[in-house]
Amino acid sequence: MNVQLGTAIATPGSRATGWLAVETAPGEQTQIPVVVINGGQPGPRLAITAGIHGGEYTGPAALRSLLLSAEAGDPVTLANLKGSIIATLATSPAAFKARSIYVNPQDGKNLNRVYPGSATGSASERIAHAIATQLMTGADVYLDLHAGDINEALSPFVGIEQTGDAARDARAVALGRAVGAEWLLIGASPGTTTSTAEQLGAIGILCEFGGQGHVEPEFVARHAAGVRGVIAEMGMGDFPQSPIERAVGSLKPGASTRLNSEAWLRAEIPADVAGYWHPAVGVGSVVKKGERLGEVQGVFGDVLQTPTAPIDGVVIFLVTTLAMNNGDPLLALGGDPEGGVWP
Amino acid sequence: MNVQLGTAIATPGSRATGWLAVETAPGEQTQIPVVVINGGQPGPRLAITAGIHGGEYTGPAALRSLLLSAEAGDPVTLANLKGSIIATLATSPAAFKARSIYVNPQDGKNLNRVYPGSATGSASERIAHAIATQLMTGADVYLDLHAGDINEALSPFVGIEQTGDAARDARAVALGRAVGAEWLLIGASPGTTTSTAEQLGAIGILCEFGGQGHVEPEFVARHAAGVRGVIAEMGMGDFPQSPIERAVGSLKPGASTRLNSEAWLRAEIPADVAGYWHPAVGVGSVVKKGERLGEVQGVFGDVLQTPTAPIDGVVIFLVTTLAMNNGDPLLALGGDPEGGVWP
Repeated sequence: MNVQLGTAIATPGSRATGWLAVETAPGEQTQIPVVVINGGQPGPRLAITAGIHGGEYTGPAALRSLLLSAEAGDPVTLANLKGSIIATLATSPAAFKARSIYVNPQDGKNLNRVYPGSATGSASERIAHAIATQLMTGADVYLDLHAGDINEALSPFVGIEQTGDAARDARAVALGRAVGAEWLLIGASPGTTTSTAEQLGAIGILCEFGGQGHVEPEFVARHAAGVRGVIAEMGMGDFPQSPIERAVGSLKPGASTRLNSEAWLRAEIPADVAGYWHPAVGVGSVVKKGERLGEVQGVFGDVLQTPTAPIDGVVIFLVTTLAMNNGDPLLALGGDPEGGVWP
Repeated sequence: MNVQLGTAIATPGSRATGWLAVETAPGEQTQIPVVVINGGQPGPRLAITAGIHGGEYTGPAALRSLLLSAEAGDPVTLANLKGSIIATLATSPAAFKARSIYVNPQDGKNLNRVYPGSATGSASERIAHAIATQLMTGADVYLDLHAGDINEALSPFVGIEQTGDAARDARAVALGRAVGAEWLLIGASPGTTTSTAEQLGAIGILCEFGGQGHVEPEFVARHAAGVRGVIAEMGMGDFPQSPIERAVGSLKPGASTRLNSEAWLRAEIPADVAGYWHPAVGVGSVVKKGERLGEVQGVFGDVLQTPTAPIDGVVIFLVTTLAMNNGDPLLALGGDPEGGVWP
């Protein structure tokens, strides 16, 4: 049976690239680049998005290296692959071109807060709707590849949901661990890609490597290795190593330490004031509840906010720009580690 | 005699902070934070801007640490200082708040391409005009503190002009070397801050440390040390070390190797195509004329452009985002090193 996404149609044992067109405004077509890999053997469906945020480069770079390589297109490899992979390479094309932080410049919205979207809404909502209906629907597993945004550093983590269905939850944990990040965060986030994929019947997995607008080879390679790990865990077979993984050489997968809670801290300063953010911690720092995490200052050094840790936790992401606006994230902590101990 | 910039008025032997208001549109006041340090002894005038580009954080961070410190405000220090320092801490406030790359979001213009500006033009032109008339005019030396932009890495460099007046040119070289960067680039750039300062009678010095939206302590400290070096070279006396210099500890100033030519390379791809930039060199790499510098690809790996080095040169800055648009800089080379040899 053929597998199709947009104009990309792959017959069994083949690979195809193409475009998923979304009418983001009347008369305006936004073209999302896609790749479809259809294995020669029956098996599950893996759906992947990269570039939901335009300035998070490690995911798109990883998928381009992994899915478009000569090795991945080898006829024998394709004939042996069990199941299919469908992926977007740049899900918010206008944000990619604009090197935009957080939002899709087509409507100023965060594409990872408007799911499941709407066929008649604004540009981001229409993209979300197309992804939900055409990419997520029918998938067994869904991966959303992110990084820290252009203004964010992070410690590699995976996010999954736990539903109370023990067998399904164990499966989500096994798939999440197969990505090989340092942390495995448990939690649901309404409006996001992965929560919507869950509602559509897939296991949704958020994968975060790299950040700060960098195309760091190590983190590109770890994203690629993470996708391969999930492909293997799904029983689809061994997917060929990507060129970027070979170039980087031996990679050390993270321990996937499970974190059962999460806390975001945001700037709380007057809206018209330019904040200057001086973090006192780095990504991966483990802090105690009540510990001072930095200062938001005014331009002349006056202290506007002294955020402290609301929980014992590890800094999973950190905004690293000097500029800080009211309501922007400062950092996030992951807490409640499995077994009660930090690795 | 008092020294004033905007609302900041410093009597001899004192320091003041305040705001330089620019009417950037009818009824819209843009407030630029400023600091004025008026020495107790007669001497020259040093004018400094930081944050001409909103996402270049090392300069604002350096001036805040250096000029606002308790040590810099010590009455004995101020009484002994010869001459005065006037500085802006965030010259493009809207760009700072927006974490904007290249442009001032008030009008979409690059504030370092519209000098000397205009009192009746668009927002950037009005800011430029205010800086030219109120900060540069009357200054003996003008420093413009930059970094690579949010999407750029760089090898620390200083830019100065040479005019043909031997004594003045030697003075510019001595002041430029006092900043302590790796490279001393010779050249004029019409429309920029430093060229306008030259026309207004100052020696204009472009200082570049850091980049990529980072607030890297080493490069913040080197900016601060560079300003102190210029203060000393101007005969104004020893200015107190900044807290950030003390925190970083021993700094290694660069050799200020003189480079007599420069070449910018830009993306040349269809305007509606999203380019994927894969540089083959890093900042500080020395390349030969004709050497391949990387590839701009389309999303599926098709090669759109293979830039090669137009001169023997060192990579002084490099765009490090995956996203690349037609006309954007890819990188710049500095060439023609003094004595014909690379350090």
